[in-house]
Amino acid sequence: MTWQATVLTLFPGMFPGPLGTSLAGRGLERGLWSLEARDIRAVATDRHRTVDDTPFGGGAGMVLRPDVVDAACAAAMPEGDARPLVFLTPRGVPLRQKLVRELAAGPGVVLLCGRYEGVDQRVVEARGMIEVSIGDYVLSGGELAAMVLLDSCVRLIPGVMGAAESAEEESFASSDRGSLLEYPHYTRPAEWHGLRVPEVLLSGHHAEVARWRREQSEAVTRERRPDLLTEQGRDASARAPLHPAASPA
Amino acid sequence: MTWQATVLTLFPGMFPGPLGTSLAGRGLERGLWSLEARDIRAVATDRHRTVDDTPFGGGAGMVLRPDVVDAACAAAMPEGDARPLVFLTPRGVPLRQKLVRELAAGPGVVLLCGRYEGVDQRVVEARGMIEVSIGDYVLSGGELAAMVLLDSCVRLIPGVMGAAESAEEESFASSDRGSLLEYPHYTRPAEWHGLRVPEVLLSGHHAEVARWRREQSEAVTRERRPDLLTEQGRDASARAPLHPAASPA
Repeated sequence: MTWQATVLTLFPGMFPGPLGTSLAGRGLERGLWSLEARDIRAVATDRHRTVDDTPFGGGAGMVLRPDVVDAACAAAMPEGDARPLVFLTPRGVPLRQKLVRELAAGPGVVLLCGRYEGVDQRVVEARGMIEVSIGDYVLSGGELAAMVLLDSCVRLIPGVMGAAESAEEESFASSDRGSLLEYPHYTRPAEWHGLRVPEVLLSGHHAEVARWRREQSEAVTRERRPDLLTEQGRDASARAPLHPAASPA
Repeated sequence: MTWQATVLTLFPGMFPGPLGTSLAGRGLERGLWSLEARDIRAVATDRHRTVDDTPFGGGAGMVLRPDVVDAACAAAMPEGDARPLVFLTPRGVPLRQKLVRELAAGPGVVLLCGRYEGVDQRVVEARGMIEVSIGDYVLSGGELAAMVLLDSCVRLIPGVMGAAESAEEESFASSDRGSLLEYPHYTRPAEWHGLRVPEVLLSGHHAEVARWRREQSEAVTRERRPDLLTEQGRDASARAPLHPAASPA
């Protein structure tokens, strides 16, 4: 069955955008996944199509109304829709490759993109949304975050990647020893501006190449991401539950 | 002076894409920043416009050639161009709001988007590229990562955000106590499906509202991102140097 993505957004015209090109775009054309972008504003009922209001307690920015977001979710998800509902927000649990693999292995995903200041928390909890963050920075809205999540999932759908784009031996691939960053790559010319490719890569000794790459992966991970080396503990405390119980405030 | 972004990519048609809409798009129209997407393939010199080759040491995927990437950088950056050159790769140091603020405060940025398996490491080091990752997941290319980095920077450029989109009190704002996730938001209706907005937000007591929000921020950060509470140590070890010395292998 086709992997189905539905995006709830105030900017449906942004989609498919970059997802219509290259790997994801070819998968879309070949029907390996589907993408529907729905305008949240379409379910607003007043004549100004109001979707937001000022925050209780004061402060800058506007907040998406719970009734409007709830109606948008209801319209997008038919009875029995088993897809997880993900709200993209910097408050969320971090998106990691493990969650990407889980989402890609399921029936698809429904994504809510925030804009303005945020979304009323009552509907986030009443709908059992999974709050997910793509990183520790602030974007102008959830749309780019949704595209990032979709691109990461779609490339794992069987048939999307060809032989030329192998998913093996990448950064964040799981292993017994936590996840590691990828080793460095080299291609022709073997000497460029006086800089030679590491000799071991020209040696033809497969076992030595594998060992060198492993050492390089471990070294760059220690230098840049020592946190990944202790990931098992981190995953236990911070991974997103795929099917949380609905828990109204 | 205008904040200048240049993107080196095999898919220049993806840009501006989502960055042409909403906040970033309005800033682009008003000349608050500029965006140039340059096709890496344009500098390839053979008649097939070859940009990549197989990796030394074997393995799947293709690697962008050092000479081609170097020529693309040279063509994009005039003599004396002070902009940092950022290579978007899952091997990189994590993008965080602090780095976003530093980049946004500078003259702009040149972004190299990887595709296929990667980029020859010699040119990454010879050009003193800052390797940056937007998160612990794998994308089909660096283009969406570049858009994420640009969106996060552009919204901080003076004049891009209006009064309706305040940058204050957000997730990852700095503080003495490390960074915190944002508190939950609520708007009208005050009661929705039997769920009421927390009473304190209706009280009008500004100090109590501020205390409640602080407590909520701390609670959600403890639950979802305990790592942020010890961020000072993390920042010291893992932040990206903005102006690294060039260090050929």
